[in-house]
Amino acid sequence: MPPLHHLSRRLVASSASPLAVRAPIGWLADSQPAAARHIQTATRSRPNSTHTPVHDRDADSHVYDITDFIGTHPGGEIILRACGGSVDPYWKIFSIHQKQEVYDILQQYHIGEIDERDLDDAGKLNWNVLGDQAENYIIDDPFKHDPERDENLIVRTAKPCNAETPGNLLVDFLTPLRLFFVRNHLWVPQTHESPQSLTVELSDGEEMTLSVEDLKAKFKEYTITATLQCSGNRRAHMSQGAGGKTSGLPWDIGAIGTAEFSGVRLRDVLRHAGCDVDDDCPSPTQCCSDEVDKHVHFMSPSDTYAVSIPLHTALNPQADVLIAWDMNGAPLNRDHGGPLRVIVPGTTAARSVKWLGRISISTDESASQYQQRDYKCFGPNMKQADCTGDDWAAAQAIQETPVQSAITNILRANGDNKTTVTGFAFSGGGRRIVRVDVSADGGKTWKQAELQADKAKGARRWAWTLWKIQWPKDELQPGKEVEFVVKACDESYNTQPQTFDSIWNFRGLLANAWHRQTRAYEDL
Amino acid sequence: MPPLHHLSRRLVASSASPLAVRAPIGWLADSQPAAARHIQTATRSRPNSTHTPVHDRDADSHVYDITDFIGTHPGGEIILRACGGSVDPYWKIFSIHQKQEVYDILQQYHIGEIDERDLDDAGKLNWNVLGDQAENYIIDDPFKHDPERDENLIVRTAKPCNAETPGNLLVDFLTPLRLFFVRNHLWVPQTHESPQSLTVELSDGEEMTLSVEDLKAKFKEYTITATLQCSGNRRAHMSQGAGGKTSGLPWDIGAIGTAEFSGVRLRDVLRHAGCDVDDDCPSPTQCCSDEVDKHVHFMSPSDTYAVSIPLHTALNPQADVLIAWDMNGAPLNRDHGGPLRVIVPGTTAARSVKWLGRISISTDESASQYQQRDYKCFGPNMKQADCTGDDWAAAQAIQETPVQSAITNILRANGDNKTTVTGFAFSGGGRRIVRVDVSADGGKTWKQAELQADKAKGARRWAWTLWKIQWPKDELQPGKEVEFVVKACDESYNTQPQTFDSIWNFRGLLANAWHRQTRAYEDL
Repeated sequence: MPPLHHLSRRLVASSASPLAVRAPIGWLADSQPAAARHIQTATRSRPNSTHTPVHDRDADSHVYDITDFIGTHPGGEIILRACGGSVDPYWKIFSIHQKQEVYDILQQYHIGEIDERDLDDAGKLNWNVLGDQAENYIIDDPFKHDPERDENLIVRTAKPCNAETPGNLLVDFLTPLRLFFVRNHLWVPQTHESPQSLTVELSDGEEMTLSVEDLKAKFKEYTITATLQCSGNRRAHMSQGAGGKTSGLPWDIGAIGTAEFSGVRLRDVLRHAGCDVDDDCPSPTQCCSDEVDKHVHFMSPSDTYAVSIPLHTALNPQADVLIAWDMNGAPLNRDHGGPLRVIVPGTTAARSVKWLGRISISTDESASQYQQRDYKCFGPNMKQADCTGDDWAAAQAIQETPVQSAITNILRANGDNKTTVTGFAFSGGGRRIVRVDVSADGGKTWKQAELQADKAKGARRWAWTLWKIQWPKDELQPGKEVEFVVKACDESYNTQPQTFDSIWNFRGLLANAWHRQTRAYEDL
Repeated sequence: MPPLHHLSRRLVASSASPLAVRAPIGWLADSQPAAARHIQTATRSRPNSTHTPVHDRDADSHVYDITDFIGTHPGGEIILRACGGSVDPYWKIFSIHQKQEVYDILQQYHIGEIDERDLDDAGKLNWNVLGDQAENYIIDDPFKHDPERDENLIVRTAKPCNAETPGNLLVDFLTPLRLFFVRNHLWVPQTHESPQSLTVELSDGEEMTLSVEDLKAKFKEYTITATLQCSGNRRAHMSQGAGGKTSGLPWDIGAIGTAEFSGVRLRDVLRHAGCDVDDDCPSPTQCCSDEVDKHVHFMSPSDTYAVSIPLHTALNPQADVLIAWDMNGAPLNRDHGGPLRVIVPGTTAARSVKWLGRISISTDESASQYQQRDYKCFGPNMKQADCTGDDWAAAQAIQETPVQSAITNILRANGDNKTTVTGFAFSGGGRRIVRVDVSADGGKTWKQAELQADKAKGARRWAWTLWKIQWPKDELQPGKEVEFVVKACDESYNTQPQTFDSIWNFRGLLANAWHRQTRAYEDL
């Protein structure tokens, strides 16, 4: 989308921020002291009602300066694509925006009305003022090329597709591909849009490009079994807690899955690219190099998604960070990031970037929304509205995740008068699950579940552990309801919090309180 | 102490267990079918009352077969030193035994009475039957050569010395040596008794011996800042919880301290000794070697203390496992393990073996009490009496520790009408503390403490983080008492449990529930 320099109405551009370079600019009525306000971007939306900007387009339009919102937009800088024109067609496609919460946020950025000279006789935006550029504002539905998905998945949003596995189907150690949860921030790139090779920025500023074939030919192939879990898994449970509603997709327990991934080690690729991997110098305080304080950046195509991980994780031979092309024995499909995806095991799935196109190393973390905003936790006292820029900067982007567990099935006794309870348990950082405690009385007393054997691969324990326990019916407390509870303990003996009260955070992240499931006594 | 083969009374020796090789044997009255019971060791104690065996020595003596107890003796195989003779002189020195709980355990192993022919006319043991060996039973107090300690330390047991730092003195990032907690299982070896060199068993069965000078000359020196914490720190708090009393030293918050340690990397020494350190093969499932499933054993002199850590920890260049000779800039003193001590940072202090004399590698974990028994946690439902051998074998020996924090001082406002609360927060595995939440209303609402800057050294975060928060008095809830609470969050976003109920374990280990301190409102 080109900048609209040719428009006759007042247009304002700023060079104050690097963002402005890519920021289209919007119309403003002459009455607005736009230049003085240093407006960089503006989305324009519909008239009169400030609460339903999408549906009512019969009068003049409002103008919003969302410059200050870019950094907190959950979708990141993709918002810039909607600048300059009407936001309505975008929100029709990205239907996730069609809720009061979003309209309220938009209203905060209202700066004025569209100049009447840009409206036609019916009071609608006169696109003719754009001349030849008008066609740039006809947007196509980019989601129409998304792959088909299994109908068993529970769709939280359709566009972009965010769909979780029903908890009761999480019964296999390796999650079947068709049931693996899908977490997309945008549409799925078509094959011709996905990067077919990987570009690594070298420290001297040069670039090295490696095709998938290059990777296979030059480096040793590794296979690891890794559980990927969305940072927001079980957010729906946290929102039911005392802290109140959190923002984000209301995942139940199914934004998690386990697969075998094959590829090459990022460590080997970085060494090949000239990165100094010096085992004698692992510490920034012990040698002149500050290598381990750096960050490896992963970028998907067109810079729509970018995050980073600490370089010391990438270089640790036991951290098993892979550039993968294979998932459960098949080439990575489009929905899961093929042809190339990073797998950062033991780390929140947001760092395992799909459709990987570019890698670079920097002394700073990624500046993206996904590093600086979306995946950070705050104390239970912090409200989103009170969260200052300093607060955001001081909070740590989620990397390794805490210990987690959930009940997937409670199966009625069949003849032998036992109730079977099953589930998963998982911890970040490669920490093995050493014990799973299950209660049938709401957490007053506990028994230990049997941990299921499996064939997980990897230098550390990157996969969940499935567990099972059988409860004789005569040991269940007769009554109206039986409340099963699970909590796990990992090899560092960290445990899950009892309730969400103390870990509540406004983004609803890392919801790992004890998982509870209630059944009627007569059904057991 | 020699075996008593020359005694005329029935003596029984067994070769069934390797322990028996070192096990002295005891008297038994002829009436006991001793050989049939395959008795390996027996301690002998005093008469009549089964509950106060130490104090009453006026009649015939009981004999106890403690063969089956050796594996669960908290002091390990040192118990064998007391076999064959009377246990009384030992218990006078190791006064930790003088309590009902211990007498009750002993009673379980009672097998008979001493033969009357071994008693003198007064009914006391007639040591003359031992002939020239009698002098071997005159025991000297081995603790008399223990170093003097700072009088500020809170002594939990004097012999062996177990003494903690008063919580309010844990105010410096580096704990002064004189205040550093002391955790000894036995007496402190005199300088001439401590190993002055390190013996490394090689994989081919040969041995390599390195003096301190060899270590300094052959390997690069590293300095790390590490917090050492006893697995039982805060046990006294857990014992006050709903689960009831736990067994072990009743530590408050002071069995923890932080120091700078200098030495060489165990990784480098193992490589020098021929251990295969192959970064391309970090996973047992990815190469033919099962190197990473092995364990490195650390032994202190005369095999009185031995534990192991996973070999993959020793070999990880970012794990910073050191063989250290320097603590806070001074040569390691006797109380803290000099001349050579292992430092396994981020791991429970029981693995940082003092007076290190020998290192070996094995496919098995250490078989010692300190690996197989003393430092394992179970579910809150498990009682010590119900814990089977299979339960012990299945439980994981503690290595990395969970997130922990405590309040060290609550200082009254001075003029500015603010109360200052300070403390420490620490997590295992090199995981940084990212947030400390403090409450002044018992945990209902929270604020974030200010994390203190420091100059910790190491590839990962091995040191605690000190924190501080100031509470304006007008924000405190007026009333009789104000309950301050602290809980920390580490970089994996693991948090502390709210109460001890769900993590209670009969050994009282890893007591990391929220720390609470109450003050009268008028004192703030």
